[in-house]
Amino acid sequence: MEAFDVIVIGAGPAGEVAAGRVAAAGLSTAIVESELAGGECTYWACIPSKALLRPVDLAGEVRRVTGLRLDDTAEGGPIDAAAVLARRDAAVSDYDDAGQVRWLDSAGVTLVRGTGRLAGPRRVEVTTDDGGVRTLVANHAVMLATGSGPVIPPVPGLAAAEPWTNREATGMRAVPERLVVIGGGVVACEMAQAMRGLGAREVTMLVRGGELLTRMEPFAGETVARSLTDQGVDIRTHESAEKVERPEPGGEVTVRLASGGTVTADEILVATGRRSAVGDLGLASVGLPESGPVEVDESMRATGVADGWLYAVGDVNGHALLTHMGKYQARVASDVIVARARGEADDRPGMRDRAGRAGAPQVVFTDPQVCAVGRTEAQARAEGFDVRVVEYDMEQVAGGYLLGDGYRGKAKAVVDERRRVLLGVTFVAPGAAELLHAATIAVTTGVTLDDLWHAVPAFPTVSEVWLRLLEAYGL
Amino acid sequence: MEAFDVIVIGAGPAGEVAAGRVAAAGLSTAIVESELAGGECTYWACIPSKALLRPVDLAGEVRRVTGLRLDDTAEGGPIDAAAVLARRDAAVSDYDDAGQVRWLDSAGVTLVRGTGRLAGPRRVEVTTDDGGVRTLVANHAVMLATGSGPVIPPVPGLAAAEPWTNREATGMRAVPERLVVIGGGVVACEMAQAMRGLGAREVTMLVRGGELLTRMEPFAGETVARSLTDQGVDIRTHESAEKVERPEPGGEVTVRLASGGTVTADEILVATGRRSAVGDLGLASVGLPESGPVEVDESMRATGVADGWLYAVGDVNGHALLTHMGKYQARVASDVIVARARGEADDRPGMRDRAGRAGAPQVVFTDPQVCAVGRTEAQARAEGFDVRVVEYDMEQVAGGYLLGDGYRGKAKAVVDERRRVLLGVTFVAPGAAELLHAATIAVTTGVTLDDLWHAVPAFPTVSEVWLRLLEAYGL
Repeated sequence: MEAFDVIVIGAGPAGEVAAGRVAAAGLSTAIVESELAGGECTYWACIPSKALLRPVDLAGEVRRVTGLRLDDTAEGGPIDAAAVLARRDAAVSDYDDAGQVRWLDSAGVTLVRGTGRLAGPRRVEVTTDDGGVRTLVANHAVMLATGSGPVIPPVPGLAAAEPWTNREATGMRAVPERLVVIGGGVVACEMAQAMRGLGAREVTMLVRGGELLTRMEPFAGETVARSLTDQGVDIRTHESAEKVERPEPGGEVTVRLASGGTVTADEILVATGRRSAVGDLGLASVGLPESGPVEVDESMRATGVADGWLYAVGDVNGHALLTHMGKYQARVASDVIVARARGEADDRPGMRDRAGRAGAPQVVFTDPQVCAVGRTEAQARAEGFDVRVVEYDMEQVAGGYLLGDGYRGKAKAVVDERRRVLLGVTFVAPGAAELLHAATIAVTTGVTLDDLWHAVPAFPTVSEVWLRLLEAYGL
Repeated sequence: MEAFDVIVIGAGPAGEVAAGRVAAAGLSTAIVESELAGGECTYWACIPSKALLRPVDLAGEVRRVTGLRLDDTAEGGPIDAAAVLARRDAAVSDYDDAGQVRWLDSAGVTLVRGTGRLAGPRRVEVTTDDGGVRTLVANHAVMLATGSGPVIPPVPGLAAAEPWTNREATGMRAVPERLVVIGGGVVACEMAQAMRGLGAREVTMLVRGGELLTRMEPFAGETVARSLTDQGVDIRTHESAEKVERPEPGGEVTVRLASGGTVTADEILVATGRRSAVGDLGLASVGLPESGPVEVDESMRATGVADGWLYAVGDVNGHALLTHMGKYQARVASDVIVARARGEADDRPGMRDRAGRAGAPQVVFTDPQVCAVGRTEAQARAEGFDVRVVEYDMEQVAGGYLLGDGYRGKAKAVVDERRRVLLGVTFVAPGAAELLHAATIAVTTGVTLDDLWHAVPAFPTVSEVWLRLLEAYGL
């Protein structure tokens, strides 16, 4: 039996941040990981997907700018997919976590390789690759950071057809000629864009409802749908897979559609959401339900556990399935754990989740990019705020026009009329990702419109849309 | 004699914004302009310079991204300069202000073409193109918005050599083979980058001191100097022109250098600063000095004028020679004028300059881009703040690395330790322009570091540098 002050289960971004912070504060810390240290984001999600999307995005920019032309004499069009896949491999360190292990080591964190599960209060059992079991005991806290896994819907034949999830898609060794995508959320949209941009001849999206990106402002999904369609993606809304057949492993896959007809492709990607990874976590051993996310309070402490030694950060608590929010929660929780271990005040400014309450920021790396923070108009109205909406077409901003001839974009701000602060902001425009953080600051910290008026956007940047929104509001 | 509630002299961005706002409030408004309505920025500065720089900047991005290559089979390399110049012409509406005139008309502003000068209190004499004189009288206010003009240093032979200023450079009909640039500020750096990127074979910068961009953090100028040098620009520091000779108009120009030796080029660009345009404004007729910028208070009202009917916004008041600051001052001043005309409170939130006091934001559109807001470390220390500096290398941010292989950048934050707020922020990185507005909000409105901690940057954007800066600070 080995004792540590803090035991973190899961060495993804959230777990690593938490382990690093508590170790830096002088607590002895172990982190348990059954796969690669670095986690889903680093090897199979954010990092490789953005590595695939970047050249596609940039090619779109070049097409909008007069005076430049991509060399499209090489086979496969203007983008050398093999080179992009090689760069992706570099971005994921060839799926080798030696760098992460070195970092954990330098941070003074003990990496325990194996599958961790709770075995009663403060107790973690780790099943190692060779089948052995190590028992760890935490003096102060155990933190769950096991992330999430893809949901495979119960369509007949789907599981047997060996569908791609985000892992196989971001990790592809070659771009499939024909791809069927089930889903219309962020992963579905980003991967449809990447695959088509990197040379897939046919990309078909099967979207259950009428819209893409349904958690965001409606114009976001509408704009992305138009753009993907223009790029040659075949979006079928109000459509779903009824049956999937793949007679030969690795061979063609045929999807029978609910509306009748079939789609045949070389691969099928399932992107219908993710579920908190609690399956084999031993939650029952500490009196918690075995399914669903682990419920936590605003300090990320699991509710319903005597003595409050259990925490959960990142996807596993179900708050916001986003890397940056997991890391933020990890900072909150680790600071709280350190304070409580030292018997210090545990309610200092950084020790409660404010960002999640305001509404997590998110970027979708399609072309146009979608970025949003806070509440949508619909959410704000449903919550009873006194809402006023302001919108602006971003091609009217000189900084947008100067980015390229076909530049189009839209900004929408949701204002709380009572407090004159922003409840939410959405930008949909090419290359808009870095516009978001200004909105995140304004929404999260509650800067008033009257104060924002004095934050002058530099001319001629796209950020001048901020001035236009405030003018449209009436300032 | 014609009477208006408000008379604006100068229809550049600042003057137009002011005229539009006071007219929208119901005041009768005239705007006087001797050149094109729209002003320097629209035809001869920000807009055309960015139209020239955009393809050069984008070509730099493409070079950093694996899997894409520009078509460089066309003559003159990868950028089709003629096409870029044509796009520039479109961006400046072929130097035709019909669109601006329509806008003024729709805004209910009377455009008076001619040269306006003060002729005593509230009185403006306009000399029209045909030599006639119109006399205008203001019921409430006269606003000076005449901008600035380039300074031509008194180097023997320089004026006679018909040097280029920002006007001829941004308006060039062809890219010169060889260019000498006198100066090391924003215009000098941007134009050196544009000319070289668009195909100039030799670009030589003569910089009086040891550094470029001396008003910004030292690393900004150092980084831009390295980049320009890598791009093939010949930067001569501690160097100046002693004599200029151009025997034949339009022919070669030869510059004799202070250090000895000469440089010969096809054109010479003077970019050694600008001076408020007060030369023929009739300031003496209202008791003001005839030279130097027009001094104003925080409501942009000229000081030392009885009854306070005179205002000055934009470059002419010398506060910050930046289009966006001129427009901001115009909003401040016009709201004040309207309030005073109506006998309403004239000290409401938007009616005093806060942005200029905090330190104007600015972007330099070189590669890398430089953006800065607030005070530099040196300024903050000189003003006696309790300063702490935090720096971070932006290639360490995943979002930066994902933008391209050679991505390098640096961020620097100047913290007021007493109040735990940001006094200034500087980013130097490719494509960093849109990072600035978050800093502008934080610096101008005084968001504390403890509040910024909850503004979570989306992963993997470059904005994650905000998190790194706060972590480096110790949060």
